[in-house]
Amino acid sequence: MSDVTSTADAPRSPGRPRSVRADEAIVQATLDLLAEGNSIEALSIEAIAARAGVGKATIYRRWSGKDALLLDALRTLKGTPPEPAGHSVRDDLVLLVGAVGHNVDPRAAKIMPCLVPEVNRSPDHYQLYQTIIEPRRRLMRDVLRRGVASGELRADLDIDLAMALLSGPMVLQRVLRWHPELDDRILPERIVDGVLEGLRAR
Amino acid sequence: MSDVTSTADAPRSPGRPRSVRADEAIVQATLDLLAEGNSIEALSIEAIAARAGVGKATIYRRWSGKDALLLDALRTLKGTPPEPAGHSVRDDLVLLVGAVGHNVDPRAAKIMPCLVPEVNRSPDHYQLYQTIIEPRRRLMRDVLRRGVASGELRADLDIDLAMALLSGPMVLQRVLRWHPELDDRILPERIVDGVLEGLRAR
Repeated sequence: MSDVTSTADAPRSPGRPRSVRADEAIVQATLDLLAEGNSIEALSIEAIAARAGVGKATIYRRWSGKDALLLDALRTLKGTPPEPAGHSVRDDLVLLVGAVGHNVDPRAAKIMPCLVPEVNRSPDHYQLYQTIIEPRRRLMRDVLRRGVASGELRADLDIDLAMALLSGPMVLQRVLRWHPELDDRILPERIVDGVLEGLRAR
Repeated sequence: MSDVTSTADAPRSPGRPRSVRADEAIVQATLDLLAEGNSIEALSIEAIAARAGVGKATIYRRWSGKDALLLDALRTLKGTPPEPAGHSVRDDLVLLVGAVGHNVDPRAAKIMPCLVPEVNRSPDHYQLYQTIIEPRRRLMRDVLRRGVASGELRADLDIDLAMALLSGPMVLQRVLRWHPELDDRILPERIVDGVLEGLRAR
């Protein structure tokens, strides 16, 4: 799927080529159908083409199949990943934790949770999900490695575990609204400081 | 809904009364319909009665309405909460973190994620969800308070934040299978030790 690039960055001028407009309509149709409760399995190229007002051939000219199109569509929900400034490990982590579970497209709130059972059932879709989240995980991994190298973080840090400790509370609160008392706005900062300092008395 | 008690503890002897068998059939029918992809909104007492092979009146004799029945049905997915031994705060937290996202009924994996968008849309259903998770949160809150009182945990600990720090990584990994490299079996222990000790070098 390396030839599949996101359409989200396409310029929104009225003069852009018809093919770009068609691509956008196809991605939007895919997201609309998912947001209306259609499962990945139920989703068909036929239904997407009909909703976008294009022929199936137009879809296949741009994407190799349903999974490649899905990858592109789901990526547009999240938007562009943040760019850590590279000065303070703590501040970079606050930035990245603040982006966990954040989506630029409101349809994500309807689409993403329901994909979980499907993704867990199908190795192909699990791979697709990993492809979407891995670039964001890599950003956090790089910041944590920098912290270990600089001596700010423990030398024996398990990077994968540390990423779960930082990301998990944000998903719990932002996606599941687990606890009504926690204030989402200052939460990234509080999660990072809490996990960095630990709960144990010293 | 305080008059609604779980049917999960009903004795499973062949001699139990017909009303208990009917209650169980109704709860199972509710869970089957949810697991088949019916939303809470789409679920009707009519459909549940038809699936359970009982009349609507039988349902209304036991439950005040759909939400009371749902509460009971969703509670049976999770099973009985664990009982902390009360000796070591660390060990009790490992026990409770190990129960986060754990369900005794495999239908939970299909039902729970898809409920998220509905729960977030409806204040009534959000309240229902809070009613289900609050008893488990209370167990963890009590252990954390004990740790603060005994001096094992920081005196300035934010209990609500600490619960999110401990529970979030487990949900992320157990429900979302966020990171394929983390070993679920030893994860509760590693999460608790990671959050207690913190990531910062000392």
